[in-house]
Amino acid sequence: MKHRIPLFIATLAFGAVGAVAQQALWDRQPVVSPQIGHNGRTTFNIFAPAADSVALTGDCVPPSMAEFNGNTFAVPRMLPLVKADNGVWSVTVDSLAPELYSYNFIVDGVKITDPANVYALRDISSVTNCFIVPGGNADLYSVHDVPHGTVAKVWYHTDTIGADRRMTVYTPAGYESDRAKRYPVLYLLHGMGGDENAWSELGRATQILDNMIAAGTVEPMIVVMTNGNVDMPAAPGESHLGLTPPTTDLPRTMDGTFESHFPEVVAFTDGNYRTIPDKAHRAIAGLSMGGFHSMHISKQYPDMFDYIGLFSAAILPRDPAASEVYSDLDGKLARQFAEAPALYWIAIGRDDFLYNANTAYRAMLDAKGYPYTYVESDGGHIWRNWRNYLTEFLPLLFR
Amino acid sequence: MKHRIPLFIATLAFGAVGAVAQQALWDRQPVVSPQIGHNGRTTFNIFAPAADSVALTGDCVPPSMAEFNGNTFAVPRMLPLVKADNGVWSVTVDSLAPELYSYNFIVDGVKITDPANVYALRDISSVTNCFIVPGGNADLYSVHDVPHGTVAKVWYHTDTIGADRRMTVYTPAGYESDRAKRYPVLYLLHGMGGDENAWSELGRATQILDNMIAAGTVEPMIVVMTNGNVDMPAAPGESHLGLTPPTTDLPRTMDGTFESHFPEVVAFTDGNYRTIPDKAHRAIAGLSMGGFHSMHISKQYPDMFDYIGLFSAAILPRDPAASEVYSDLDGKLARQFAEAPALYWIAIGRDDFLYNANTAYRAMLDAKGYPYTYVESDGGHIWRNWRNYLTEFLPLLFR
Repeated sequence: MKHRIPLFIATLAFGAVGAVAQQALWDRQPVVSPQIGHNGRTTFNIFAPAADSVALTGDCVPPSMAEFNGNTFAVPRMLPLVKADNGVWSVTVDSLAPELYSYNFIVDGVKITDPANVYALRDISSVTNCFIVPGGNADLYSVHDVPHGTVAKVWYHTDTIGADRRMTVYTPAGYESDRAKRYPVLYLLHGMGGDENAWSELGRATQILDNMIAAGTVEPMIVVMTNGNVDMPAAPGESHLGLTPPTTDLPRTMDGTFESHFPEVVAFTDGNYRTIPDKAHRAIAGLSMGGFHSMHISKQYPDMFDYIGLFSAAILPRDPAASEVYSDLDGKLARQFAEAPALYWIAIGRDDFLYNANTAYRAMLDAKGYPYTYVESDGGHIWRNWRNYLTEFLPLLFR
Repeated sequence: MKHRIPLFIATLAFGAVGAVAQQALWDRQPVVSPQIGHNGRTTFNIFAPAADSVALTGDCVPPSMAEFNGNTFAVPRMLPLVKADNGVWSVTVDSLAPELYSYNFIVDGVKITDPANVYALRDISSVTNCFIVPGGNADLYSVHDVPHGTVAKVWYHTDTIGADRRMTVYTPAGYESDRAKRYPVLYLLHGMGGDENAWSELGRATQILDNMIAAGTVEPMIVVMTNGNVDMPAAPGESHLGLTPPTTDLPRTMDGTFESHFPEVVAFTDGNYRTIPDKAHRAIAGLSMGGFHSMHISKQYPDMFDYIGLFSAAILPRDPAASEVYSDLDGKLARQFAEAPALYWIAIGRDDFLYNANTAYRAMLDAKGYPYTYVESDGGHIWRNWRNYLTEFLPLLFR
C-alpha cells in the first residue's frame, strides 16, 4: 500500500483522479478472474507473459477434463491453461453446477493463488481462492441484502485445559435490539486440521444462517464454533503460539480432553449469552472429527443436547483407552437413548472413506432400536457435502 | 482439503499415523519461510525448481539492497533470490528492525504469496504475506498470552445512507464478565481503499489494545472500526455486492455523507454497548482519509468527541462545495475549540506527501491559538507509522 496510496490521495487532495493512479491504488490485475458466465461456464485468466506453463487445480476441474491418474489422494486434478499473444493464460470450464468452488493456479510448478481474485480461504496449511456459481443451495452461501447476525471472536477460559481459548460465536440479527429474547444454541464443530474459523469461512455457516433465518426456514439461534485442537488456543496466527501450523504432532484432538472440557464451553455460553439453557434448546453437530466429538460429547453428557448431527463422522477413537470418555460405549449410548434425543441425524456420502464405519455404527444403533435419521449423499469427505448437510440439518432444529 | 484429509483420518481411525499422510494433510511446503533469526536476520525460501527467476518484494527489502530506480511509487523494491541445486530459491536480509513486514514473491513475473506462509493480509486488491521481527513496538503487534478482547463483525442500520452496514467492534477483556462496568469508546477510521477490516488486520489494533490494556498503559475501552466507503456496506466479499473491489469510481468517501451519518454510528454504539455516552468518554481518530473524516466529523459535531487523532491526515476536501459538512471551516473550528478538546493530536511523517498540508493546517490552528499536540516521525504514508501512532495515542485517552 505504501507505494501506491500516496500518489492517489495526492490527486484527490490536489486535483483530478487520474486513471494511472487508479490502477496503482487498486493494484488491479490486467485480467478478470474467474469470469462466471451463464450455465456455470467459468473462465480463469492470469497474466503471466514470462511463464512456461500454467495449470488450474481445484474442485472446479471436472475429473473428465483433468490430467487424472486415478489417485484422488496424491494427485490433484489439473487442467492446463493456454497462453495468448498478450501474455494472458486462460482456460474455460463449462457447465459447473451451482456450488462454492476452490482453486489455485500452478505457475511453472509453484502452486499460487489467483492474483486477480482477492477472495481466498485458508484450509489448514493451504490457501485457495474461492468463487460461487449461483443457483440452488449455492445461493445460501452468498451474502444477500438480508438482516445479518453478528460474528464474534470470543475468548473463554477452561480449567480443564488450563488455557484461554478462542471460539467463533454467531448471534442472529435482532439479538442486540431485543434484549428480552432468549435463543437456542447450536454447537458446531470442525474436522481434523480445522479450527474455530473453519465453519464460518469454508463452511459458509454464517451466510447460511443469515439467509435461512431471513427466509424463515430456520429458527433464530446462537451458534458456537469452538477449536477442537486442545493444544491450539486459536487458529494459526491468532494465539501466542504464533503463525506456524502444527507439523508432526496433532494438537491433541482425540484424547478425550476436548470432550471433557465441553461443559465449560456450555457454561460459558449460557453465562455470557441470552440462551435457553436446557437440553431441549441445545444442539451439537460436527463434520468428520467434529462428528466424532459430537457423538462422544453427547453420550458423555446425555442431559445436555437434544439434537445431534454427525456429518461424515469418524466414529471410534484411535485409542479407546486414551480416556474415560471412550469407555463403556454401550452403557453410555443406553443412557443417552433411554429418553431418545429429539433428533439424532447421521449423514454421509457414498464415496466417503468413513462410509463403512458409519454403516457399522448404524447397524449397532438399529440392533438396539435407537432411533436416528439417516441421509446418504453423493460424493465423499468434502466441504460441499458438509455445507449441504448444514442446510438440511438446520431446519430440523428447535421446531 | 478433500484430496488430503481422508487418507489421514483413515490412518487415524484404523492405524498408525504415517509420515506421508501427515505431509499430505498439512500440504506442507518443503521449506520454512520466512526464517527469522537473531538481530532481524531473515531468510526467505521458496521451492520452485522449474522457475526461471524469483524475486522478493515488500517493505522488508531495504532500499540499498533493492534494484531501485528511484521511483518509489511505480516500481516496488525487489531483491533477487538465488536457486540452489535442490530447487529451493533463497535470499537473506540482515538486520531488519523490529517491525511487522509484508512481502510477496515474484516468480517468473507473477506476483504471488509465499506458499510456505499462510499468514496473509488483503490490502485493497493486493494480498501480501506478513511476518513480525520481535522487539520494541513490534511486540505489541504479536498475540501474547494475555486476556483477549472480543472482536465482532456487527451490522448497523443507517437511515442517512439507507443501508445496513458492517463495523468491527472491539470490546476489552472482562466486558462480558462484569455486566455493570461501562466503557469509553474510540472510533477508529481507516484510509482510502481500506474498510472495516483494515485497522484490526493491517493495523494490528486488536493486538495492540489487548497488550497495552494488559500492561496497564491503556484504559480498557470499546473500539468501533467503521467502513468509510459510503457505497460499500462491507469489505469486498462480505456484502451483497460480492467480491469485486471498486474499479473506476470511489465508493463515495469524501462527499460529506459518511461524516453526516456518523451520529447514527454513535447512537448505535451507545444503544448496543455499555458505553459512557458523553463527550468526555469518546475519541475519534483515523489515518489518511480517516484522519480527514475525524477532523471533519469532530468539528461538525463539536459536542461529541473530547479526543481527536489525525494520523497522516488528509485535510481539505476535493470539492468544498460537495457538502455542508465542508463549509464554514473557520466557524466550525471556532465552535469546536470554544472549549478546547481534551486532546487534539496530529501526527505525520517527514516524508509524507501530506506533510505540507498538515503544516499549513497547524499554522492555521496556531494563528487562532487552538491547542493541539504534534508528533513528527520518520517515514511516509505507511502502516508502520499508523501502528506506531496508535501505540502513542492510546495511552493519552480517557485519563
